[in-house]
Amino acid sequence: MSNVILCDIGNSFLHFYYSGRIWREKPNEISAKKPHIPIYYISVNLNYEKKLLDSHKKCINLEPYVDINTSYTGLGIDRKVACKAISNGIIIDAGSAITIDIVENNVHLGGYILPGISSYQDFYRQISYALDVNLDLSVNLYMPPKNTKEAVSFGILKSILLMIKHTSQTKKLYFTGGDGKFFAKFFENSIFDNTLVFKGMQQTLKEIEKQHN
Amino acid sequence: MSNVILCDIGNSFLHFYYSGRIWREKPNEISAKKPHIPIYYISVNLNYEKKLLDSHKKCINLEPYVDINTSYTGLGIDRKVACKAISNGIIIDAGSAITIDIVENNVHLGGYILPGISSYQDFYRQISYALDVNLDLSVNLYMPPKNTKEAVSFGILKSILLMIKHTSQTKKLYFTGGDGKFFAKFFENSIFDNTLVFKGMQQTLKEIEKQHN
Repeated sequence: MSNVILCDIGNSFLHFYYSGRIWREKPNEISAKKPHIPIYYISVNLNYEKKLLDSHKKCINLEPYVDINTSYTGLGIDRKVACKAISNGIIIDAGSAITIDIVENNVHLGGYILPGISSYQDFYRQISYALDVNLDLSVNLYMPPKNTKEAVSFGILKSILLMIKHTSQTKKLYFTGGDGKFFAKFFENSIFDNTLVFKGMQQTLKEIEKQHN
Repeated sequence: MSNVILCDIGNSFLHFYYSGRIWREKPNEISAKKPHIPIYYISVNLNYEKKLLDSHKKCINLEPYVDINTSYTGLGIDRKVACKAISNGIIIDAGSAITIDIVENNVHLGGYILPGISSYQDFYRQISYALDVNLDLSVNLYMPPKNTKEAVSFGILKSILLMIKHTSQTKKLYFTGGDGKFFAKFFENSIFDNTLVFKGMQQTLKEIEKQHN
């Protein structure tokens, strides 16, 4: 079971895991993998999924096998799989959107969605050209802002951080995604782990294996 | 000095105040005012300002006379004028953007900017069609969301409310703008006042009067 390739198909890249190594590939530049190694994947993007299937014969979609305890309807497969990687804590996947999910004793209690940093920046620009500023990611979060650049940067960062802090309480925070490392450094009880999804996929494979033994 | 018309030119409407009454007019449907009554105005929209000036001869831009104590550079005239209306407290102007400004002993200490509710909704739609939901403005803010509609609504409302609460501490909150009434009801120490800008303009007129006596 260990000699498999894992693939997480997102809206920008395909992320791969093989034998302890992770890397990403562009949807139009998928490299050829050894044909005898099966690829297990999950996908939130149908077009990119098709590109993987076209280039590789032996691909298995793990989605039907991912079983998590939740009463949330419509939970994305990437969020589901990440939740399988931990037993207790909060998972923050910070990309173009930021998803925050709460896991307690292997049960997903619910979660919510915020725009990601880069999305926010585009959005302010759309409200008014006066708000079209380059963000200051090191803006002082403990002093009232004194100009538009600070006012926008403060609004974005502080609102995201307050939400995470409020959800965290004393629980452990697991950050992943493109901006995960950036946000993780604001919290003591945090871990940055960009293999969370792959850990959840491995967990799913283990469960399948058990059922067949 | 009391027999004047006040006008606040925004990005959607022109808001008028005359003798205790407030109303709004569309930029392309400005009603004729009595020619002998001067109109004092502030404006954040050059096009709409031109429409007022074209339709009325006796209009005076108050902006050059608005004097507030602040070290914030680039503060919009509408925010400046609203700050003049209070001596102590937080002003939250909730429209297509939400501006939050802190006033202490007649000094503006700074402020920041969040997207407004309707802007947020457009933005989620742009991140992914899966996030194109009608908001639930009465979503439970004390339970983890259980579906996409709740997850998006919770993300928007809770982040705005946490920011306001965090800025407020024990200070009084003055809400204004289209969504001001909605947000005001979440806080005990709050007032909804959609005449804040006009109060600030009146304050400015008083100061001008004093200087001339």
